[in-house]
Amino acid sequence: MTSDAQTAESPLAGVKVLDLTSVVVGPVATQVLAEQGAQVIKIEPPDGDLLRRLGGQSRSGQLSPKFLQLNRNKRSLAVDLRTQKGQAIVRKLIADSDVMVTNMRDRALTKLGLTFEDAKALNPWIVHCSLTGFGRGGAYAERPAYDTIIQGAAGVVGANHRLTGEARFVPMVLADHVVGLIAVQMILLALRAAERSGTAQSVEVPMYESMANFVLQEHMGQKAFRPERGETGDTRVLDRNSRPAATADGFICVSANTDKQAFAFFDLIGRPELRNDPRFESVAARFHNVEAYFGLRNEALRQRKTAEWLTLLDKADIPAFPVKSFDDLLEDRHLAEVGLFESLEYPDEGEVLHMRPPARIAGASPPDRAHAPMLGEHSRGILSDMGFGDGEVEALIAEGIVVETCPGKTRQESPDE
Amino acid sequence: MTSDAQTAESPLAGVKVLDLTSVVVGPVATQVLAEQGAQVIKIEPPDGDLLRRLGGQSRSGQLSPKFLQLNRNKRSLAVDLRTQKGQAIVRKLIADSDVMVTNMRDRALTKLGLTFEDAKALNPWIVHCSLTGFGRGGAYAERPAYDTIIQGAAGVVGANHRLTGEARFVPMVLADHVVGLIAVQMILLALRAAERSGTAQSVEVPMYESMANFVLQEHMGQKAFRPERGETGDTRVLDRNSRPAATADGFICVSANTDKQAFAFFDLIGRPELRNDPRFESVAARFHNVEAYFGLRNEALRQRKTAEWLTLLDKADIPAFPVKSFDDLLEDRHLAEVGLFESLEYPDEGEVLHMRPPARIAGASPPDRAHAPMLGEHSRGILSDMGFGDGEVEALIAEGIVVETCPGKTRQESPDE
Repeated sequence: MTSDAQTAESPLAGVKVLDLTSVVVGPVATQVLAEQGAQVIKIEPPDGDLLRRLGGQSRSGQLSPKFLQLNRNKRSLAVDLRTQKGQAIVRKLIADSDVMVTNMRDRALTKLGLTFEDAKALNPWIVHCSLTGFGRGGAYAERPAYDTIIQGAAGVVGANHRLTGEARFVPMVLADHVVGLIAVQMILLALRAAERSGTAQSVEVPMYESMANFVLQEHMGQKAFRPERGETGDTRVLDRNSRPAATADGFICVSANTDKQAFAFFDLIGRPELRNDPRFESVAARFHNVEAYFGLRNEALRQRKTAEWLTLLDKADIPAFPVKSFDDLLEDRHLAEVGLFESLEYPDEGEVLHMRPPARIAGASPPDRAHAPMLGEHSRGILSDMGFGDGEVEALIAEGIVVETCPGKTRQESPDE
Repeated sequence: MTSDAQTAESPLAGVKVLDLTSVVVGPVATQVLAEQGAQVIKIEPPDGDLLRRLGGQSRSGQLSPKFLQLNRNKRSLAVDLRTQKGQAIVRKLIADSDVMVTNMRDRALTKLGLTFEDAKALNPWIVHCSLTGFGRGGAYAERPAYDTIIQGAAGVVGANHRLTGEARFVPMVLADHVVGLIAVQMILLALRAAERSGTAQSVEVPMYESMANFVLQEHMGQKAFRPERGETGDTRVLDRNSRPAATADGFICVSANTDKQAFAFFDLIGRPELRNDPRFESVAARFHNVEAYFGLRNEALRQRKTAEWLTLLDKADIPAFPVKSFDDLLEDRHLAEVGLFESLEYPDEGEVLHMRPPARIAGASPPDRAHAPMLGEHSRGILSDMGFGDGEVEALIAEGIVVETCPGKTRQESPDE
């Protein structure tokens, strides 16, 4: 950390983001922006982001564990966009924002007046980011997309099927999560373009194409060459022996790709002659004989306990690490030492464990540390900031166009707490 | 696409990036920067980036399929950093760059004079991005990290183990790939900070912490609440029935999360009464009875062929899609229509299939379309641009400090072609 940067503001200080997304792909993106100093207003329907209820067992019933990990540092305005008055509120917010993000399909954007053209008419400098399922201009455009749909469509399930013979998802909301990270890049790039050119920018981030690209960068394999020089798939990653090795008491990951690492491993298992085996004598040779190479590695690792191997492998400068569970991570010494975990006090939930952003710019201001909002927690404050009078706000709430939840009034689902 | 933006330059036009990374995590990041207009110089050791040989079966033997998908639009300078003269070349490049990216361990950075402090002394505006395995300041700092190590350490393997009982990797270089995307965000944020403040910026992107965060945002589960309200893990994603459903002739993914979708599905399978079943009557109820809900869904889908289901589900507005293989993606109609694939002519390889960036800023200049470089393909040109005379360049090559590969001279591995 350098002294001259210690008082620097957050990289996105002063950037206003209007977040019209829900569930995972959009919230992942806007949480990163919020952590870097942007002011994010999360627009929710009157019954809230669906993710609030996908797994919710908080004391208040308001926050599922996944919702709270993806919506920190945002303010929630719950408003009914099906009403004229609701749409007028959002139009006013668009005029005052630097960035708006949506994950609605185009026909909903058109119906609600939220297209790029609509937004540009309200704000000539806006960055309009549209997270689509299947990109505009292709046969599947406007088809609905969810994480599991995209995992199946874009080859993630296909990769598991090639490896194990079973059609399985990766047990994470992987496509949403990865595409959310890509959306952050695109928003930052478009913001740069908007600031430099003084013109509004329209960005599309299509989930299907983005994940197909993600998967095929790994697995286009020999079909990248025209004429083809073999099959699709990275044969090393897809080899049946490419797996954490069982030790005498657990599982260990060992990575020995370079000659130096591989030869040190052969020495360690008492088989130094393997370095002269034509199957294993070079990176290319081991690649072509990967099943045999990984197989003998796994076989050897079975002979001792994990802790013994870690000591031996470390001494030989061969990368290795034990397999950890989710629970292990929560107790992990390194993660505690770098301060990954921090708890925040929620008004109706008590203490909740969060993670600070792992990547850091040295000397930048620490990110804000506000908890994930209750539904409409900031409805009143946001409307007031926009210039609505108290009477107008009360009327909007009375009409059901705006919804607010006040701390201390949310314990409807767990009366036993 | 709007007319006023059609001649806009690429968002990163004029940004110079010095890429001292190898294998996957760094090259993923710098390829995104290159695609958005940055000028990227890839520094390689005299024997080349290891990834060139992990799977290489190109005609020239110079380019593995994965290497070429991750190094497009970069220029390669092959130089021996263990020599004084090699280090002097890199120091001169640092002075002339906006961004430098490394994935070496700190002790190598120190030895080679590539730390943030070293770089700032040469260039007071540099963005220095350090991709580390395990972050500085924690117990595992300086431990070597590769993708499989991080998948095991950070809970990716743990997630598969919870789902299937088997310790398995995700069959992609997932941690490298995801952390590469996060690195792009951090570089763009630091570039913004450097340009606004006029000061050098130091960024650290630790793989382990980044992936632990990625996994735990999904799977911290009920242990986020203090006191704990249950177990780790998103029980919905980890449910044994959360899988693509087998149809009469293949696999299909169906996503019916909202009440509207779930009730339409119950109608479609001839069981409308299920909407009043207390197990399935709301999002929260289905979440708590996810095994039964997914189970009856999978059972019903077994009864017809995939194509029949797609027609029926589409008509009922229930998101669904068939599972696709890597090979299916290469032949996919939508991907062809949006122009995902494009081929580039390589001097010694012939035609090679690439993908253009799936996400786009409307009206921005199309990305550059240069092929992935041969080892040291641009060594001579880069040194010449830096002011080295022809004689100096020849001497560096003769001494083995700089390596170049010239098109037409690389067919050492496949004489039969």
